[in-house]
Amino acid sequence: MEDMTDKPNLLGWTCPRPLQHYPTIVMGHGAGGKMMADLIEHLFAPAFDNEWLSQMGDSTALELPAGKTAFTTDSFVVSPLFFPGGNIGELAVYGTVNDLAMRGAKPLYLSAGFILEEGLPMETLGNIVTAMAAACKKAGVKIATGDTKVVQKGHGDGIYINTSGLGVIPAGVDIGPANARPGDVVLVSGTMGDHGIAIMSVREGLTFETEIQSDTAPLNGLVEAMLANAMDGHRSPSHKSKKQGGHAPFGDLSAGPPLPTIHCLRDATRGGLAAVLNELAGSSKVGIEFDERKVPIRPEVNAACEMLGLDPLYIANEGKLVAILPEEMAGNVLAAMRRHEYGKEAAIIGGVVSEHPGLVTAKTSIGGMRVVDVPAGELLPRIC
Amino acid sequence: MEDMTDKPNLLGWTCPRPLQHYPTIVMGHGAGGKMMADLIEHLFAPAFDNEWLSQMGDSTALELPAGKTAFTTDSFVVSPLFFPGGNIGELAVYGTVNDLAMRGAKPLYLSAGFILEEGLPMETLGNIVTAMAAACKKAGVKIATGDTKVVQKGHGDGIYINTSGLGVIPAGVDIGPANARPGDVVLVSGTMGDHGIAIMSVREGLTFETEIQSDTAPLNGLVEAMLANAMDGHRSPSHKSKKQGGHAPFGDLSAGPPLPTIHCLRDATRGGLAAVLNELAGSSKVGIEFDERKVPIRPEVNAACEMLGLDPLYIANEGKLVAILPEEMAGNVLAAMRRHEYGKEAAIIGGVVSEHPGLVTAKTSIGGMRVVDVPAGELLPRIC
Repeated sequence: MEDMTDKPNLLGWTCPRPLQHYPTIVMGHGAGGKMMADLIEHLFAPAFDNEWLSQMGDSTALELPAGKTAFTTDSFVVSPLFFPGGNIGELAVYGTVNDLAMRGAKPLYLSAGFILEEGLPMETLGNIVTAMAAACKKAGVKIATGDTKVVQKGHGDGIYINTSGLGVIPAGVDIGPANARPGDVVLVSGTMGDHGIAIMSVREGLTFETEIQSDTAPLNGLVEAMLANAMDGHRSPSHKSKKQGGHAPFGDLSAGPPLPTIHCLRDATRGGLAAVLNELAGSSKVGIEFDERKVPIRPEVNAACEMLGLDPLYIANEGKLVAILPEEMAGNVLAAMRRHEYGKEAAIIGGVVSEHPGLVTAKTSIGGMRVVDVPAGELLPRIC
Repeated sequence: MEDMTDKPNLLGWTCPRPLQHYPTIVMGHGAGGKMMADLIEHLFAPAFDNEWLSQMGDSTALELPAGKTAFTTDSFVVSPLFFPGGNIGELAVYGTVNDLAMRGAKPLYLSAGFILEEGLPMETLGNIVTAMAAACKKAGVKIATGDTKVVQKGHGDGIYINTSGLGVIPAGVDIGPANARPGDVVLVSGTMGDHGIAIMSVREGLTFETEIQSDTAPLNGLVEAMLANAMDGHRSPSHKSKKQGGHAPFGDLSAGPPLPTIHCLRDATRGGLAAVLNELAGSSKVGIEFDERKVPIRPEVNAACEMLGLDPLYIANEGKLVAILPEEMAGNVLAAMRRHEYGKEAAIIGGVVSEHPGLVTAKTSIGGMRVVDVPAGELLPRIC
């Protein structure tokens, strides 16, 4: 296993006595018998403790609030399991939380499906589960249902995690990849490429003066702040005062015509900023133009990219989003982003045009113009 | 890979031209670029074609009908990928459909998360996806969201699939593992052990006069029939006529006290009948007694178990359920089960007692009594 086995201890999981019989995962932990029950009772249940998981049925019964439901799934196969700034457990929670948030949904419940490789140290699993529990708390979600399978040594890579997520989309919010319109503004929430380069620097054994950390983070709070400020410019104070308690900042938007709101949100994961902009240009049948010099990139990420022959626009992020929205609300939204913990370095990088639909172009640092194409295949395998 | 590579062809998938460049899965198919887009466009999207999946966002927006939502997750790591009577694709759909049905929920939407091993033949993937699409049709569910990851050769076993599921629980239905009461009757929906023995006979190279087939099947229709007949004995015809159209057979049960209904349902997967009965006895804090001679078991499954030194009560099923319900409705429900395609060999095998809470006992074939304990660990690894 390539996981940095010196790191998991930092998370401080202490193996409870009934699990001390098993220094590593064995096949029986996935066989539906007493060993699996031990794992659930002494590891998963205490970490993810909540009323939904404790129903312990084949499925969990939930009461979802009114509104459209957002549903998503993601499997996590990142290698190494622990990396500067994060680990597979946090990634599995935040990745799915972010996929829900990119619809404007409030994330509520996750599932957790574990595929464990025989021989995985119990301590590694304990620390990953501890990290997931902390991440759930930070993002305000609950793990409502789970599953564990074990595969023989040599048929996995320590641990793979699938999380699926459920969230509720407030009335009036309609965010989707086909909604970009010419005249819209394109924003990013911060520096690009941190996560992919953090993973690569571990794999390649690169060291820099400043360690490059993954940006893994839950973006639902940032999106909530953006939506609140996207709407503010379009509602009279008297109308705002009609908000229902408990549903702020979204209020009751069911009456009247749809309000202008954020058009597209996308977290810039696999394929990075370039992949996201191409997807949005393609889905919305518009052109996108941006200025490379306006894209925030850490100097050490730039340096690493030069050394590795990589383009930072194609490198994955795990705590950054791309937003496309009407120009008139851009100032408000940008200010709200910069006030938020995960948007301090937010920037307007370009705009949407009716020319060259489906195509993304960039003004280069030397003042020229280039087409920013979709990445073909593999850039950095298994970064999430 | 151990999959029976002569079998996938039977499913009749034809590789579309744009995918013919790739006889096998390569790392780039999971990298978020053009190769992954090709896989989605030419394989997943046509197979799972529906309005939800085609939203192509980070998450899918759904309108769920009124009622409690059931949520579940399951990863599938079965080996071999193709086996007599089924394959990993069908298992992944029916397994999650059944977990929803065991709450009395109507399954509606699934997610599909694929972890592919580099080198997996494209044809194998094509046939598995084709089988999943057919299984979805049979079970009446839609794949609403998906994800694909690729891991290097030697870090997987061809393909692992996670499916999570969403269903709606009709008003008045309250099925859970803690609901069994002394005096209740215990039923099984058919023969026990078929799936596990079908898998084992492939692995061990056993042949029998009659090939033992997996029983993999969607049980939501059977549960619906059982629920309809569980309620019939407890409602006057005049009350029944108030049913709302479109929600039959459940009707509007929100008024009045909760009606007697089925107490527990469980599909007897990993750990078989023995594991399920022990879980239910433990959760409900009751004793369960059954008669071994009344448990339906195919003669060839019995023979295989003797040869392999296994107890059929501990062998997994993938299309069989255990039900615990009040005695007065048992006749009606049993008759309804026997009329259904997946319940023809249903049988009453025992009952719930207040003595020895948490303990399951069986009358043996020679007239004695034995405790049927929880399996400790591994019996048959990777049977689902």
